[in-house]
Amino acid sequence: MTPGRPVPPPLARPIAPAPDAAPTGGAAGQLAAAYGAVSGDSGLVPLTVARRAPKPDDVEIAIEFCGLCHSDVHATRGEWGGQVYPLVPGHEIVGTVTRVGADVTDFAVGERVGVGCMVDSCRECDSCLDGLEQYCERGMTGTYGAKDRRNGDAVTQGGYSSSIVVDRRYVLHVPDSLDPAAVAPLLCAGVTTFSPLRHFDVEEGDVVGVVGLGGLGHMAVKLAKAMGARVVVFTTSESKVAAALELGADEVVLSRDEAAMEGANRTIDLIIDTVAAPHDLNPFFRTLRVDGALFQLGLPSEAMPPVNPGALIRRRIAYAGSLIGGIAETQEMLDFCAEHGVVADIEMVSAGQLNEAYDRMVAGDVKYRFVLDTSTLQAAAEEADA
Amino acid sequence: MTPGRPVPPPLARPIAPAPDAAPTGGAAGQLAAAYGAVSGDSGLVPLTVARRAPKPDDVEIAIEFCGLCHSDVHATRGEWGGQVYPLVPGHEIVGTVTRVGADVTDFAVGERVGVGCMVDSCRECDSCLDGLEQYCERGMTGTYGAKDRRNGDAVTQGGYSSSIVVDRRYVLHVPDSLDPAAVAPLLCAGVTTFSPLRHFDVEEGDVVGVVGLGGLGHMAVKLAKAMGARVVVFTTSESKVAAALELGADEVVLSRDEAAMEGANRTIDLIIDTVAAPHDLNPFFRTLRVDGALFQLGLPSEAMPPVNPGALIRRRIAYAGSLIGGIAETQEMLDFCAEHGVVADIEMVSAGQLNEAYDRMVAGDVKYRFVLDTSTLQAAAEEADA
Repeated sequence: MTPGRPVPPPLARPIAPAPDAAPTGGAAGQLAAAYGAVSGDSGLVPLTVARRAPKPDDVEIAIEFCGLCHSDVHATRGEWGGQVYPLVPGHEIVGTVTRVGADVTDFAVGERVGVGCMVDSCRECDSCLDGLEQYCERGMTGTYGAKDRRNGDAVTQGGYSSSIVVDRRYVLHVPDSLDPAAVAPLLCAGVTTFSPLRHFDVEEGDVVGVVGLGGLGHMAVKLAKAMGARVVVFTTSESKVAAALELGADEVVLSRDEAAMEGANRTIDLIIDTVAAPHDLNPFFRTLRVDGALFQLGLPSEAMPPVNPGALIRRRIAYAGSLIGGIAETQEMLDFCAEHGVVADIEMVSAGQLNEAYDRMVAGDVKYRFVLDTSTLQAAAEEADA
Repeated sequence: MTPGRPVPPPLARPIAPAPDAAPTGGAAGQLAAAYGAVSGDSGLVPLTVARRAPKPDDVEIAIEFCGLCHSDVHATRGEWGGQVYPLVPGHEIVGTVTRVGADVTDFAVGERVGVGCMVDSCRECDSCLDGLEQYCERGMTGTYGAKDRRNGDAVTQGGYSSSIVVDRRYVLHVPDSLDPAAVAPLLCAGVTTFSPLRHFDVEEGDVVGVVGLGGLGHMAVKLAKAMGARVVVFTTSESKVAAALELGADEVVLSRDEAAMEGANRTIDLIIDTVAAPHDLNPFFRTLRVDGALFQLGLPSEAMPPVNPGALIRRRIAYAGSLIGGIAETQEMLDFCAEHGVVADIEMVSAGQLNEAYDRMVAGDVKYRFVLDTSTLQAAAEEADA
């Protein structure tokens, strides 16, 4: 049982447990209070998730906080297609260990831990062996909505819930010095921006451009600053200038101002582009120095405007993509954040506010990440039931 | 005077000499027989170019061979706009030193040398100081059709001519062991493919894909093989399969065959894309492994189809451009070619065949590079005059 948090009664039909959820003669799994979607237009409603009993390598976690990622909105609304319902989203999970399997030596009960975007991968391909589990050749197992290959192909259910059970290999140590609620978004927004900054080897004196100032963008600003870079934020919206400077940006360029963009010509080493709507990259390529790179992190649902190859050729520029980060790199990011005192700027929401929070995310009305306080799941469910 | 090759009489109006072409009291410049365009639709006609007397840092070269690059066709036909006529193209130049300036110690009369796509750059910017003169922040000085900043802004005139005078910093040593005519295309097609192969650090066991099998593509195959890579050629044309294998390719994939492309999924480390017509890159991204890269070298005059960012994101793939190579790197390439016995496959043409050769290049009818024998310039001019 989750210490300090009562296991709720089944609130809706329990989501089908994995076959080994309650193995005969073994420890019992548990039912977790959750919020999720039962169809693409249901919004988020109270649900109950059956969590498996910890297997030898498993860590059982009482979830305290879960960040709200824009991907959660796309997934619950079925905007990416192929979604199986019911679906409990959430992959920015922070909590404390309640039980560990017999073979787990690196996590102890009571320890604060995190879980990010994946809970498994094949562990055998070159990517997995290289610590790049996010690029697993057989496909990583997402924290929600994915077939759980080592657990009877049950569909994984995410962190808008009171507990979760995850193989120790995909669990992170959360440094004690950081506010756990504000750590939650680091598990996706943080590592997604940290990884390309590290991959490009950003260091003191480099100039990093950040396109877009949402959940990912604000993390990119903080992390790049902590790495010693000069940070230039590109935004279409004049209203974000002050906020960007407040976050630590050294300069803000209004990307629709042609003269300002011309002034930024050949000044940037690396651009972290966090905008998930189609947009023309060519003006940004022109702001890059020789051997510069633009990493696109957001995946628009419609086609992007064509790239002008001349812009790439004339300065040996790379237009690259990047997907979250590997497990070891996620731990490195958390340790880096502890060292530099970096966390996300968050607004806490209760379970009953989730649907409103989604609407506000779509409207871009959040500074900069909503985090669900999972202690409110039970009360919200009872209220919805009443 | 060029030893062994008479200086021709002025055949057409001499192209305006640079102001210091014949400095008072100094050594005299010379008039070079040449072929070039006098307008976008003139075709190539006999011309005379006034070459400056060597300044202290200059090397005067009697040109023996000059490769025909597709850029020459675009430039002489004015297809890139802003062209100044008359224009003598040619930037794949091999010849022998006939005179050197007072301060030149690294080149000797009689030595075989080469000149590639540039004859000057600012020499002061970060790119120039890094040996990346091709990305000079103030713009490199192209071997033809460019303002010659240190020579009174005279327009540079290229290698379809009997001689040229070039600052020693932009002159290459041509290894004796290589056929000089077949070396000429190395100065552009060779280094343009060598540079991204080296930049990506291709080594034994890597898998290199080559898209397109023309002048650049055939060099990419030879150079990648010489670096120890396994080479996969992608071509739309079944007729090129045998030729690709003959050049040393380990495998040929017909890029319009969806099943074949699917079979190549996630097998390639680096793609050298030499196609200068608009084409969809997304199927090629899918053939790349995690951390793979596609370097586009050709610049289509029309827009490319949109890139799917998901293809880049899912494997941290980079879509990059690359422009020729720096001077030190060009020398490294020539030395590498000497070590590995690599030269271009060429078809020699006389000056009188240049226009026909252009038509054949546009039709893709050349294996794989035409090289002008400049000893024919004089005779062709006389014939044209008769």
